[in-house]
Amino acid sequence: MPADAAAYSASRGGEPFHIIDPEPFHRAFLDEICALATEIRAVAKTRDGRLGLQALLGDRRAMLYFTQPSTRTFLSFNNACHILGIRTSEIRDPSTSSEVKGESLEDSIRTFSSYVDVIIMRSAEPGLAARAARMMDSIARPVPIVNAGSGPDQHPTQALLDIYTLERSFAERGGIEGKTIGMMGDLARGRTVRSLCHLLRHYPGVRLRFLSPPAFRMRGDVRALLENHGIDLAETDSPGKVLPELDALYLTRLQSEYDGPGETARFDHARFGIGPDELRRMKPDAIIMHPLPRGPELDPRVDEDPRAMYWRQERNGMWVRVALLIRILGAVAEFRGIRP
Amino acid sequence: MPADAAAYSASRGGEPFHIIDPEPFHRAFLDEICALATEIRAVAKTRDGRLGLQALLGDRRAMLYFTQPSTRTFLSFNNACHILGIRTSEIRDPSTSSEVKGESLEDSIRTFSSYVDVIIMRSAEPGLAARAARMMDSIARPVPIVNAGSGPDQHPTQALLDIYTLERSFAERGGIEGKTIGMMGDLARGRTVRSLCHLLRHYPGVRLRFLSPPAFRMRGDVRALLENHGIDLAETDSPGKVLPELDALYLTRLQSEYDGPGETARFDHARFGIGPDELRRMKPDAIIMHPLPRGPELDPRVDEDPRAMYWRQERNGMWVRVALLIRILGAVAEFRGIRP
Amino acid sequence: MPADAAAYSASRGGEPFHIIDPEPFHRAFLDEICALATEIRAVAKTRDGRLGLQALLGDRRAMLYFTQPSTRTFLSFNNACHILGIRTSEIRDPSTSSEVKGESLEDSIRTFSSYVDVIIMRSAEPGLAARAARMMDSIARPVPIVNAGSGPDQHPTQALLDIYTLERSFAERGGIEGKTIGMMGDLARGRTVRSLCHLLRHYPGVRLRFLSPPAFRMRGDVRALLENHGIDLAETDSPGKVLPELDALYLTRLQSEYDGPGETARFDHARFGIGPDELRRMKPDAIIMHPLPRGPELDPRVDEDPRAMYWRQERNGMWVRVALLIRILGAVAEFRGIRP
Repeated sequence: MPADAAAYSASRGGEPFHIIDPEPFHRAFLDEICALATEIRAVAKTRDGRLGLQALLGDRRAMLYFTQPSTRTFLSFNNACHILGIRTSEIRDPSTSSEVKGESLEDSIRTFSSYVDVIIMRSAEPGLAARAARMMDSIARPVPIVNAGSGPDQHPTQALLDIYTLERSFAERGGIEGKTIGMMGDLARGRTVRSLCHLLRHYPGVRLRFLSPPAFRMRGDVRALLENHGIDLAETDSPGKVLPELDALYLTRLQSEYDGPGETARFDHARFGIGPDELRRMKPDAIIMHPLPRGPELDPRVDEDPRAMYWRQERNGMWVRVALLIRILGAVAEFRGIRP
Repeated sequence: MPADAAAYSASRGGEPFHIIDPEPFHRAFLDEICALATEIRAVAKTRDGRLGLQALLGDRRAMLYFTQPSTRTFLSFNNACHILGIRTSEIRDPSTSSEVKGESLEDSIRTFSSYVDVIIMRSAEPGLAARAARMMDSIARPVPIVNAGSGPDQHPTQALLDIYTLERSFAERGGIEGKTIGMMGDLARGRTVRSLCHLLRHYPGVRLRFLSPPAFRMRGDVRALLENHGIDLAETDSPGKVLPELDALYLTRLQSEYDGPGETARFDHARFGIGPDELRRMKPDAIIMHPLPRGPELDPRVDEDPRAMYWRQERNGMWVRVALLIRILGAVAEFRGIRP
Repeated sequence: MPADAAAYSASRGGEPFHIIDPEPFHRAFLDEICALATEIRAVAKTRDGRLGLQALLGDRRAMLYFTQPSTRTFLSFNNACHILGIRTSEIRDPSTSSEVKGESLEDSIRTFSSYVDVIIMRSAEPGLAARAARMMDSIARPVPIVNAGSGPDQHPTQALLDIYTLERSFAERGGIEGKTIGMMGDLARGRTVRSLCHLLRHYPGVRLRFLSPPAFRMRGDVRALLENHGIDLAETDSPGKVLPELDALYLTRLQSEYDGPGETARFDHARFGIGPDELRRMKPDAIIMHPLPRGPELDPRVDEDPRAMYWRQERNGMWVRVALLIRILGAVAEFRGIRP
């Protein structure tokens, strides 16, 4: 949604402010967040470091406004706040907030902004985070909006944690540049792979392989964007041939919550999934990522394989969100002060 | 409910304890809370001040027991607690608390009091906060009860924040005394205007103008109270004539949650609402208040007018609740210690 | 469930880790937790002590995963965490966590363990906490699992707080040893009395009296365990004869949530309950315990009798959980450091 993207201010005075879609994340920002997340993890290894992090934003408050239930993303953000001492208020069950339902999104967001320093929001409907950011840009005392997933369109912090996981995994192997990355599953509706594609164009030499049934292939807008950036891109509905050449495989589950009748039944999980057989055909140093929760496409026996990266990816998500909160709440310099 | 009011101890040793209804708030108490809220806001402008506030009640715990959902009042209290470092536990969805539902209110409240230092409660039924306070008064280890709204009867902290908003708005114009204050809308069932009327009798020379359709006029008990205190009072169902003389207009929404069949349809929002036309007929320095959330009676175009005070009123609510918690938890002297 | 008990590691390097069932609680552990709880309460009497407790685990985070709603146990654990400065995240309404529902318990628990330092869980189904502990034992970065009640089988922290309440009550009378303890009500399905029986076998000379209708008598497994340990045990459906000889009466409510049709109707609350008449027949220094919430078996008029111990028992629960968290999170030595 480029029109929406243009309509709110992603940055103020050159500093990032709202986090709505991955479009404005350029390479320098990605590198900065990755480096910051790694520094934070080092600091958090000691009790003194953890207490230092707690004090860093101990005078701030966050609102987690999750009208689309999501345990994983909620917990990741909530604990990222807690690591930094940020006090959290939450709306997770839309039915709890009968008054909010009766009022406009704009009035609800403005109300939240009266009480807290940052609003983290997730919705089933697309575009709500962008609308919230536009509302903030129209008032005298705005607070940053962080999009924690808005319908099937964008999920920018998931894209950041995916980049961070790739960056860490390939740190000793020349970085993300030049790697062959497969994306497999329901690519048509998986917002995580869509957002990740937006960011991978900043890494020269990356090759992308889309593995999906024809009915679930990546949409034209993303393919056009990648082609415009000269990314080496191939699509197939025969994963078997492509698996052996991948450095990373990003597996996604069927987004059945957006299904029309019969669509789930048409999806062949065995063919677009990973189990012991597929593992045998992959490179010994490939990594396997998944945004979780898993469906039948990811055999639990894969968990024991050292190439399974998805549990670390999940934990990386919390640290990337800690880094992002430090960054948009303007505490990078203070953070550097607590390093031993 | 004077019988209820008499049955619990609003104060202990001369200090305020439970906050159930606005009846015991005399002028000295109102002035003290307003001054304290203003001091707190000044302290909260610096990081050191905010960290000082966090430490003030950092060893205390609160229970927010909201069986009537209310996002706004919940968030205001929750963040007031967080500003002071108070840890919060919550019940917001009555269906979560199946065990509580099976037991008496008295047993539930006594249980909460085992775990926390203050209970903030809101209910759809009238009189529950008073019952809770009476239960506390009967045991050896009572904690204060704060009424965050009990059905259609009283909402004392809303009344306090309304007084604070009026007091701040008229600080440079001789205070609330002598001002002409209009109340418009569903005055029969709006607990905010009822509670505010109770407090306005402490400000000499205030003139009250009730603007409502005949079927929604202010109830006789409040009118009798005001007349007994010699308040200059007038009622009309023709707002147009009264608008130009008002220093403040307190607008309320239709309390349709308490509606009998057809009552909402009978309410004329255009006639008892505010938009650009009505603004033109009001004084240039009048203020417009509203407890929010808004209904069709408050045109969003009013937001841009400098006379719109309702968003600041909302934020004032949080600061007044911070002041109230400091007061009833006995931390005023310690608060004065953290001032720079 | 000895098979389950054997399948996870209740301790690591000799230190307690998961808290799943009361089986591994031997006498030394019970004495240690009771002594620790008493020390903590002494420390918590001063503001400095409370702030010291807050700092003790101020860098830790807990997950409260309550798919079986339980206000009382939830609040007790939540506030125990807050006393220690532990930040809490919660799932209390199973319907909020639609994603979690779609995934296996093992995946959900592993996800929670990515974000927090301890998982406190309660479920309607038996055996889930043991399964969660086994999952933790299979991964490289396990966190402790605390069972806050799993269906009708075990409720180990309730058993600990019951032991603590008995221990405190009889501190001046030679301890729990040699006392006659009655258990009355729905003994077949009350998990609190089942768990307590497991622990009472560690106190020599204790006499147990089970008072229940024949259809609700204590199950054979517990009776066999007690008989194997040589406990003096008697059962009756005529409480009247036994009441005068009791040092403690542990009353339970009918577990009607597990009822077949007509079972509740068959239960005679008047006969297996306590009111003013029964009080008159009990020893003047007997104590009356109840896990709460109460049903019709416990007359509210008993509350005023000095022998009523259940409200203190409830508050003891919070302190015992504070002690347990300090113990399993390895902070006993640091706690001793904050004592004045």
